[in-house]
Amino acid sequence: MYKIAVIPGDGIGKEVMEGAIDVLEGTGVEFSFTYENAGDECLKDCGYALPDDTLALAKKSDAVLFGAAGETAADVIVRLRQELDLYANLRPVKSYPGTNAIFQDIDFMIVRENTEGMYIGVESENKDGATAKRLITHKASQKICDYAFKYAITTGRKRVTGVHKANVLKITDGLFKKTFYEVAEKYDTIESNDYYVDATAMYLLTKPQFFDVIVTTNLYGDILSDEGAGIVGGLGLIPSANIGDKGALFEPVHGSAPDIAGQSKANPIAMILSAKMMLEFLGENESAKAIDEAVLKVITQKNILTPDMGGNSTTKDLAKSIKNNL
Amino acid sequence: MYKIAVIPGDGIGKEVMEGAIDVLEGTGVEFSFTYENAGDECLKDCGYALPDDTLALAKKSDAVLFGAAGETAADVIVRLRQELDLYANLRPVKSYPGTNAIFQDIDFMIVRENTEGMYIGVESENKDGATAKRLITHKASQKICDYAFKYAITTGRKRVTGVHKANVLKITDGLFKKTFYEVAEKYDTIESNDYYVDATAMYLLTKPQFFDVIVTTNLYGDILSDEGAGIVGGLGLIPSANIGDKGALFEPVHGSAPDIAGQSKANPIAMILSAKMMLEFLGENESAKAIDEAVLKVITQKNILTPDMGGNSTTKDLAKSIKNNL
Ligand SMILES: CC(C)[C@H](C(=O)O)[C@@H](O)C(=O)O
Ligand SMILES: CC(C)[C@H](C(=O)O)[C@@H](O)C(=O)O
Repeated sequence: MYKIAVIPGDGIGKEVMEGAIDVLEGTGVEFSFTYENAGDECLKDCGYALPDDTLALAKKSDAVLFGAAGETAADVIVRLRQELDLYANLRPVKSYPGTNAIFQDIDFMIVRENTEGMYIGVESENKDGATAKRLITHKASQKICDYAFKYAITTGRKRVTGVHKANVLKITDGLFKKTFYEVAEKYDTIESNDYYVDATAMYLLTKPQFFDVIVTTNLYGDILSDEGAGIVGGLGLIPSANIGDKGALFEPVHGSAPDIAGQSKANPIAMILSAKMMLEFLGENESAKAIDEAVLKVITQKNILTPDMGGNSTTKDLAKSIKNNL
Repeated sequence: MYKIAVIPGDGIGKEVMEGAIDVLEGTGVEFSFTYENAGDECLKDCGYALPDDTLALAKKSDAVLFGAAGETAADVIVRLRQELDLYANLRPVKSYPGTNAIFQDIDFMIVRENTEGMYIGVESENKDGATAKRLITHKASQKICDYAFKYAITTGRKRVTGVHKANVLKITDGLFKKTFYEVAEKYDTIESNDYYVDATAMYLLTKPQFFDVIVTTNLYGDILSDEGAGIVGGLGLIPSANIGDKGALFEPVHGSAPDIAGQSKANPIAMILSAKMMLEFLGENESAKAIDEAVLKVITQKNILTPDMGGNSTTKDLAKSIKNNL
């Protein structure tokens, strides 16, 4: 029996979470789900975007499922990542047949450093302007690069690409690049190379099949994974895992989408695939695989799809259809 | 007679520059070209990537044409931008018919702040890690936003989109965003909106036709313009202008491409279109238009193209063909 903290959050977060829980219940794996609040509504209701109770629950659970937060997203999700030390943010970019993906046969993983970089929240302002501090440590760089190479090995991937901007950020990204190659040396069965982040933004479009595993710092990972979403047809299909040594949190890459919230239009697949990543994390590989296959089947059949994929089914019905195909 | 500083630089920089000068000579506009060195080779030969003579020449010319630099690119081009206070970096993203652009009918302009952000070069390292400082000032933000709206008005564009990450970088990007809307208020005939940089990286692929003028900080502009290059089929076609109050520098967005240097394979169009942007800057609009039309003609005829565009002509021949079509 796994103890799962469920934080649906705002807007479509609630709707897609319902779908994902429904699918998880169909796997036969035993869970005890405990719900807590976070996000804009929560801030309005109780004065905190991330209440202590929610944080405490997240910390003592086996894993956390997170939906989405609105304006307060940074205060909720960035804080959760840091408080739980979820240092590895995994964002698979995969194209599904028959979708409006720009390219077919896309299948790479972005491993994003999740605790430092531009996200440390050290900013200040005076009359001359505002400054922000970017922090890159050897320790965090080593940990994330190591994670990426280990991931490549366990999943049978063959290449890891380190992404940085060391021509301009010579010291911070220089450290990341140096550390990347230090780690690469230990994994001699895996190819390694490095690119500048701007070049990568182009190569993702001019040679997307080149990429296998990308490892990069926090903000570059943020930008490149949304570009990846664009490549495979939008955020409705991109799940993510935030992994630490003592816990993990799973969330769709999309946000709370106020424009379509409450209309049962949201695509639950990103959240369902996030739940699938949770199953993998928990070692429930059979069930994870069953979800993967069910998602692929439903996408390929094209009968029951949400509007973003050209269908007119509801969030609930799409989730139900995936559950029925388990 | 315009005094033009010509800095071909490294690798294909030299080859594409030759092509661009050839085309400029075909326009009938009178130039006096003065050549100077910069880049990796220059560093090897004389000990400086950007010698004082080159900088002095750039400062006293009416405009600078720059090819590309290799490993020393940051020391050359970032320094030139800062020393000449070329605060606006214009990067048009435009799809040409018959190319391998991902979308047709793409035509937007990225206006990138060019003097601050992550490019101020303030970094340090100690035993705990490395830090970099990001600087956003009200002054530079106002100047670049104002440039973007003025640009929209003079070129008949209808919308300016401000791009930032103010949900995470609340103070620095918060300042940029606030300044963007302050400026937007003064231009009530132009629509304005703002997006997060990650969302923009996706929207450039899911709704590229939405974009008209994008204005953003230095590094985001760097990344998004390379993504733009990917959208229109690669860097071979993307020119850029670096504009200041007292001078301007024109360069292709591509680099020195050591892998194809010296093989007469490089596509000179990005450099030729950069020369075209120089003509516009100098007020030689007729000649600029002639180059634009000649480029379009040659691309559409498909007889003489470099390998990156599916042809097998040389850099020189492609340039010559554009010159002959003026
Ligand atoms: C909501 C925001 C703080 C977050 C981030 O920047 O990490 C989001 O864009 C993401 O990618 O998960
Ligand atoms: C070469 C490099 C310093 C430069 C930059 O980062 O600005 C380049 O990528 C560009 O976009 O002109």
